[in-house]
Amino acid sequence: MKLNVNLPDHPYDIIIERASLANAGDWLKSLWQPQKLVIITDNHVGGLYAEKVKLSLQGAGFDVLVFDFLEGEASKNLTTVNKAYEFLVKNGMTRSDGIVALGGGVVGDLAGFVASTYMRGIHFVQIPTSLTAQVDSSIGGKTGVNTPFAKNMVGTFTQPDGVLIDPDTLATLGKRELIEGMGEVVKYGAIDDLDLWQELSEMSGNIDSILDNAEDIIFRSCNVKRKVVVEDELDNGVRLYLNFGHTIGHAIEATAGYGKVMHGEAVAIGMVQISRVAEKKGLMPKGITEQIENMCAKFGLPTFYEPWKVEELHTALTHDKKARGNTIKTVIVPELGSAAINQIPLEEMKDYLEK
Amino acid sequence: MKLNVNLPDHPYDIIIERASLANAGDWLKSLWQPQKLVIITDNHVGGLYAEKVKLSLQGAGFDVLVFDFLEGEASKNLTTVNKAYEFLVKNGMTRSDGIVALGGGVVGDLAGFVASTYMRGIHFVQIPTSLTAQVDSSIGGKTGVNTPFAKNMVGTFTQPDGVLIDPDTLATLGKRELIEGMGEVVKYGAIDDLDLWQELSEMSGNIDSILDNAEDIIFRSCNVKRKVVVEDELDNGVRLYLNFGHTIGHAIEATAGYGKVMHGEAVAIGMVQISRVAEKKGLMPKGITEQIENMCAKFGLPTFYEPWKVEELHTALTHDKKARGNTIKTVIVPELGSAAINQIPLEEMKDYLEK
Repeated sequence: MKLNVNLPDHPYDIIIERASLANAGDWLKSLWQPQKLVIITDNHVGGLYAEKVKLSLQGAGFDVLVFDFLEGEASKNLTTVNKAYEFLVKNGMTRSDGIVALGGGVVGDLAGFVASTYMRGIHFVQIPTSLTAQVDSSIGGKTGVNTPFAKNMVGTFTQPDGVLIDPDTLATLGKRELIEGMGEVVKYGAIDDLDLWQELSEMSGNIDSILDNAEDIIFRSCNVKRKVVVEDELDNGVRLYLNFGHTIGHAIEATAGYGKVMHGEAVAIGMVQISRVAEKKGLMPKGITEQIENMCAKFGLPTFYEPWKVEELHTALTHDKKARGNTIKTVIVPELGSAAINQIPLEEMKDYLEK
Repeated sequence: MKLNVNLPDHPYDIIIERASLANAGDWLKSLWQPQKLVIITDNHVGGLYAEKVKLSLQGAGFDVLVFDFLEGEASKNLTTVNKAYEFLVKNGMTRSDGIVALGGGVVGDLAGFVASTYMRGIHFVQIPTSLTAQVDSSIGGKTGVNTPFAKNMVGTFTQPDGVLIDPDTLATLGKRELIEGMGEVVKYGAIDDLDLWQELSEMSGNIDSILDNAEDIIFRSCNVKRKVVVEDELDNGVRLYLNFGHTIGHAIEATAGYGKVMHGEAVAIGMVQISRVAEKKGLMPKGITEQIENMCAKFGLPTFYEPWKVEELHTALTHDKKARGNTIKTVIVPELGSAAINQIPLEEMKDYLEK
């Protein structure tokens, strides 16, 4: 299956195909001339897939090196970025060479940032291997790393030249990692795609049901993301819809300590929390929160978090990238399958954090 | 005097006007709504001008903070960038706020990089205070910092929203800093502007002659740069002409240890060196090298450098951002006022380093 992210300046395709990792070379040859490549990955994903991808790329005539770093959110920082720069310089990578991001969201965001800033930008492609990365972070051109002060506080908007998704990689994900990815999938259904919501409703919710439906739910999710990104690449308008559950979710991630609550988990909690308060305020009809909460719960996603510290969460919110001056735009779902934006004074956001 | 950098996606004006620093507020009000601003500067320029600019900006309704760092090329690194990020986060800067780069090339490049990556990009303007920054680095959107391995190895292409040039700031530059800036000015004359070359020929070459002619030579220089940037923003074509003297110049800067040879000095040496060898190889008519050499010397620019270590320079060259695979495109001047590109295998570049 193929989707085109038809951005005027930089169109690219998303390929979704089982067992495609072993054909990465042919795919990349259709995008780039043979050249020097660095696969950026982490030690976990690298151990599983780097050799397979490398062999395929070499078979297609590329000269391939691998740079890996310790897996996990804690590595997503400027120190790792600096090590990657050093690796690229020492191996003589020039602007005509390319980077292949192979891994989950941390790898994709970091590798994209490295590629977009090394020598003021060299080409890169994404081969996302986690569900979160496949349905969300590998598409749309947001790159970035964390700082000690806030998550994804540093980054760029830089589109990859292509995205290759092999749903078979999901079979090697840990259970929690797989479930986490469903947070974003549920979000896409809620904000934009009733057919996806319907499909999710019909699934049993167990791991096998996710793996069996992987191709289709990835395709539908990518399609929502693609559509919104093309309309609003730089995130000044409708792209904000993708932020449903994220404003509070980011604050949860930040205050819990990065890596404690996974991104998709925080999004699930955030969707339920903001919907519950929006319902109370009469901004969403009754019943939608419950449907979202039940859907999350069915897939094993958390829908609450403890300890819930309103003041800390609120402080974290004020550092959100979506804040503008003293207000923040949040997303609500007035009916399933469609989203709306709600501009709220930062002070009033405390209401939205009340349990 | 005003020049428009008419890039389709992001047009902006360069204002060149004596005593304009004191009116920075009115200028910025014509570009931005009143909002929170951070002036990024270094301790030297900040000591001279930050208060004046801050007062003017406050007078125009902006809320102004100042972040400064230790002056000099040694500060142009990711450590300083990180401190700037921290300052921005701690002061609650959001994407609707803006950055004012006030200083020379180091400040402009670093502040531009910070602005282009903080929260994936916030608006910034340039107020360059050195001749090099006024005629070159503040225009065109190249941002960046050095790594321990190579100069400007990390950066982005991100255009400012405006450039304000006050030629009066040149009066407080050190003599060496002022002369250094003439390296780029001589370059503009040589590659593109015979009228500028003529004007330079008529100047005595002493400091006063530079200060007296500042407005005009800045205007002419910016006009060449503007023209080339608009044609080739991302530096894949004619923008390369601006690189005359730079391939060897960068290698000199890198091997001398950053900050030892100033950028404009290295460019002067590089222009003379590459021209001399190009003449020998019959790629440039005899006599041009001598004219360039004499022009540089008249303004007090160095035209040679010792110790001249061919092997070290060649190794540095192979890390140049302009290298592509195993070749590098260099610039020569077949006749004064026009440039040509010459693609050379990296191996052959050794010839161009011979004395």
